[in-house]
Amino acid sequence: MGEALINGSGAVSNVSALETLGPAAKLTDADPSEIPPASGPGRENAVTISDILERRAKAGRLIAPTASYADSDMFKGPQVGKPKSKSMNHHLSAESLSRHPCALKQAARHLKNPNIISLGGGLPCAEYFPIESITLKVPTPPDFSEAATSQSGAEVRIGKYDATDPSIQGTYDLAVALNYAQASGSAQLLRFVTEHTELVHNPPYSDWRSCLTIGSTGALEQTLRMLCDGPGRRDSLLTEEYSFSTALETAGPLDLKVVGVKMDGQGLLPEAMDELLSNWNPEEREGRRKPHVLYTVPSGQNPTGTTQGLERRKQVYEVARKHDLFVIEDEPYYYLQMPLEESKETESEEETVESFMSSLIPSLLSLDVDGRVLRMDSFSKVVVPGSRVGWVTASENIIEQYLRHAEVCNQGANGISQVILYKLLDEQWGHEGYFKWLMNLRQEYTKRRDTMVTAAEKFLPKEVVSWTVPVAGMFYWLKIDHSQHPGIQAGKGILEVEEEIFNSCIARGVLVARGSWFRAEQDTEPNELFFRATFAAATAENMTEAIRRFGEAIRESFKL
Amino acid sequence: MGEALINGSGAVSNVSALETLGPAAKLTDADPSEIPPASGPGRENAVTISDILERRAKAGRLIAPTASYADSDMFKGPQVGKPKSKSMNHHLSAESLSRHPCALKQAARHLKNPNIISLGGGLPCAEYFPIESITLKVPTPPDFSEAATSQSGAEVRIGKYDATDPSIQGTYDLAVALNYAQASGSAQLLRFVTEHTELVHNPPYSDWRSCLTIGSTGALEQTLRMLCDGPGRRDSLLTEEYSFSTALETAGPLDLKVVGVKMDGQGLLPEAMDELLSNWNPEEREGRRKPHVLYTVPSGQNPTGTTQGLERRKQVYEVARKHDLFVIEDEPYYYLQMPLEESKETESEEETVESFMSSLIPSLLSLDVDGRVLRMDSFSKVVVPGSRVGWVTASENIIEQYLRHAEVCNQGANGISQVILYKLLDEQWGHEGYFKWLMNLRQEYTKRRDTMVTAAEKFLPKEVVSWTVPVAGMFYWLKIDHSQHPGIQAGKGILEVEEEIFNSCIARGVLVARGSWFRAEQDTEPNELFFRATFAAATAENMTEAIRRFGEAIRESFKL
Repeated sequence: MGEALINGSGAVSNVSALETLGPAAKLTDADPSEIPPASGPGRENAVTISDILERRAKAGRLIAPTASYADSDMFKGPQVGKPKSKSMNHHLSAESLSRHPCALKQAARHLKNPNIISLGGGLPCAEYFPIESITLKVPTPPDFSEAATSQSGAEVRIGKYDATDPSIQGTYDLAVALNYAQASGSAQLLRFVTEHTELVHNPPYSDWRSCLTIGSTGALEQTLRMLCDGPGRRDSLLTEEYSFSTALETAGPLDLKVVGVKMDGQGLLPEAMDELLSNWNPEEREGRRKPHVLYTVPSGQNPTGTTQGLERRKQVYEVARKHDLFVIEDEPYYYLQMPLEESKETESEEETVESFMSSLIPSLLSLDVDGRVLRMDSFSKVVVPGSRVGWVTASENIIEQYLRHAEVCNQGANGISQVILYKLLDEQWGHEGYFKWLMNLRQEYTKRRDTMVTAAEKFLPKEVVSWTVPVAGMFYWLKIDHSQHPGIQAGKGILEVEEEIFNSCIARGVLVARGSWFRAEQDTEPNELFFRATFAAATAENMTEAIRRFGEAIRESFKL
Repeated sequence: MGEALINGSGAVSNVSALETLGPAAKLTDADPSEIPPASGPGRENAVTISDILERRAKAGRLIAPTASYADSDMFKGPQVGKPKSKSMNHHLSAESLSRHPCALKQAARHLKNPNIISLGGGLPCAEYFPIESITLKVPTPPDFSEAATSQSGAEVRIGKYDATDPSIQGTYDLAVALNYAQASGSAQLLRFVTEHTELVHNPPYSDWRSCLTIGSTGALEQTLRMLCDGPGRRDSLLTEEYSFSTALETAGPLDLKVVGVKMDGQGLLPEAMDELLSNWNPEEREGRRKPHVLYTVPSGQNPTGTTQGLERRKQVYEVARKHDLFVIEDEPYYYLQMPLEESKETESEEETVESFMSSLIPSLLSLDVDGRVLRMDSFSKVVVPGSRVGWVTASENIIEQYLRHAEVCNQGANGISQVILYKLLDEQWGHEGYFKWLMNLRQEYTKRRDTMVTAAEKFLPKEVVSWTVPVAGMFYWLKIDHSQHPGIQAGKGILEVEEEIFNSCIARGVLVARGSWFRAEQDTEPNELFFRATFAAATAENMTEAIRRFGEAIRESFKL
């Protein structure tokens, strides 16, 4: 198995997992006093791309050799006027509190001295890496289509020794990316992600940090193990009453009782959550103590497709403060926020990066004055799922606990994906190009969503099927009025009817997801009937045909 | 976070996590009756590369679209005459036993029918993947050097639609590799790994399986959570008395008590383990029940560099059977088995792939008639660590439990590394070329090891420093006779002297690892003094200089 990494050291002074791995990444030619201050906290004083570019120009070339230490603080602007986060240590599980930094990584801080020869860590020599170079063919903004890429895409080459070859003076190369690295992620991609997070969210406390993850699937399990203790503390997990089934399947084996909060067309209902928490009685809850962690998907929620508006998010956050909840904000669909038909006249104006950014509903992270939110971002829905790279953002202390676990449970994101994402997003596109990519992508998904709206309007029997058109994400949530079903009227259960319809769909050649799979409280009886359909995957023609078949199945089942 | 994958289905009949993800990978033009039987169990009747080539030729092109289901059974030869594994379910933790297959993945089995349109899973379209192709420059066997690669290496291109383009008829492309996939790994790389495992280990029971991992760091944590339950069952973990520090740091927060087994020059002592287990008394062990899991590194053990010979391995396995232990066999250094100086005359004969394979000490997996071994393999030490790809091999039942966890904790190995490894190892090199790469690599490490032997002979004071020359791995384990130390004679503790020497090394410009970091039982007082030095990382010149400095530090400390 992987040798712990000790080929370097950190430069910060507190004893932490963050300080130990490799030589600290360095910015050359930098005079810290010249680095311009960020424009300040809050979206009204947002950091801009030109701030970032100026900061980088003054900082000089990033030097980050094999397994070098890096953290967000190296790449954030000055956090002028922001308070420090509040301690959230009382939320941590016994497992998390018992974690210590790796011994071998601690030792590595001695490698700050460049004259030290390391016989410490078993890192293979780059000489034995059997890949001399990797070359990518990628789109050039603003035309991201496959046809344009084929004709005029850019060739991006990553050599083994680009960073140490004086004639290239690269920032990231295969000798570094293919070796062991820090669990926090490479300095190179971490810089991009930190800057991106500052551009979009600019958290309103000073000691926020980001670190890379192996994707949000892994990040959620790590976060649950960090915050929740089922067997020892009888913890529960709050979430929307319908929630991502894999998240439910992650929580179950940790012996966490999942508790669903009522929803409306904007997702989670803060009043319902407040009431639930205010009236929590462990004796009525199998001895479970009052929940202290909320898992929520604010934008394009899976499976319901609902999106919390800004006011809703503020209310959710206030209830979290009132009951001292820690909030896991899972936002894979954040950039797939889509205008509704009626508001599309604004599209005739040319969308700019600035108008795109200001059109995004502020995140819970951007409202988080306390440091009680851990936000999970992912490249899966907006670049490629196969990279298994995402990132989390939270207070320094929480990120440190997260990383201590990451060091022993996955060693962080893989280097091959990191260097490819870095070359594409940072060197080839830059922040501006990446935003343009995201703008293009949400246009594509808007078209797909609209295809499904049209098909649903045309083929679904509105007397029993209703829906809210989603304004974000990939999912259409179809409510079926089960009370009109002849079977229900004759005494059948909702699950039975759901299964009949599902099987009838399969027989007709369409696979949809059963709503009951997503019920937070699997041990209670359902009193509603839903199906989930995605508009992400099928072609327009197939999607329309599939909805037609689904409508047929409903009509037959309801004898319409 | 990642949507569970449902764009396909499995073709096997039992309800399991293995059967659910995508359409089953298919072998075209195959007539199963024509597939030649493997040569049978046991190393004396080993499967050969030509058996594999013949099997593949008869099977035809592998068809494995996005998220398709695959398992080792598709790629193993007939397991004629082998018994089934014994049930190891009594070893599983409550957490593991509570795992169910993912609902969404279960649903995907309906996609066997090609006429079904899926609105089920939120898998992005390949159209939105911003990478048209990836091109690698890689070595061509038999000259793997960087110079030769630069001059005459091969260019290997991976296009987005290679597998569906009739003019290319590729096996694995970016449309597949960049999307979500099965936790078990892609059919393409899983086939290679399964065949490689059969060639080298050919487990002596029929229902063995391999699946890919995110590297052995992650695999160990998953395996410990699957087999051990600290809080609920008061489990302990057996391991060598000196063990990989990251493994110890993985076990600690799971509330597992680590128990060290005495070692000699061949590593773990079976008699000592037998005695320890035979005399286990929970009352003397803080209420811990008798250990039922052994974690061992048989080849080039970290940190001691010791290697269990074949007889030793048989004895270890017999003790495991006697006490019903489950064995985690961690073998990152397996292929770095190095001839000793005195036996090197055999090197003058040209080494062949066959002689290389028969020179390898048989693994515990290859001796495992019961199915009580989970073997962890890794590409980190022999290809690149930055891929974060390895694999585990165990009985079908154990692999299924492992995968149920993998589905929610990491979704398996990343697709970008998988397609790159597949193209290099399978299509470019093939099994034979990969073995030649491994032969070349162990020659390189043998040279490095010999450089350190020469330096140690020259610069270390043998009156206080002793060692066994390692025959595998990356580590040199230096025993210091602390009884001769003036400080010890004056009443100092071993840890104090260790720290003095460590600091003196740092002051002289060499980083070595302190032996105490690797002590399995951290809560007891050490009675021996060791340092670990790696010959993997530094150049020959630096390594020699570093050992000279280390010798100086020892001489000064011992006043020699």
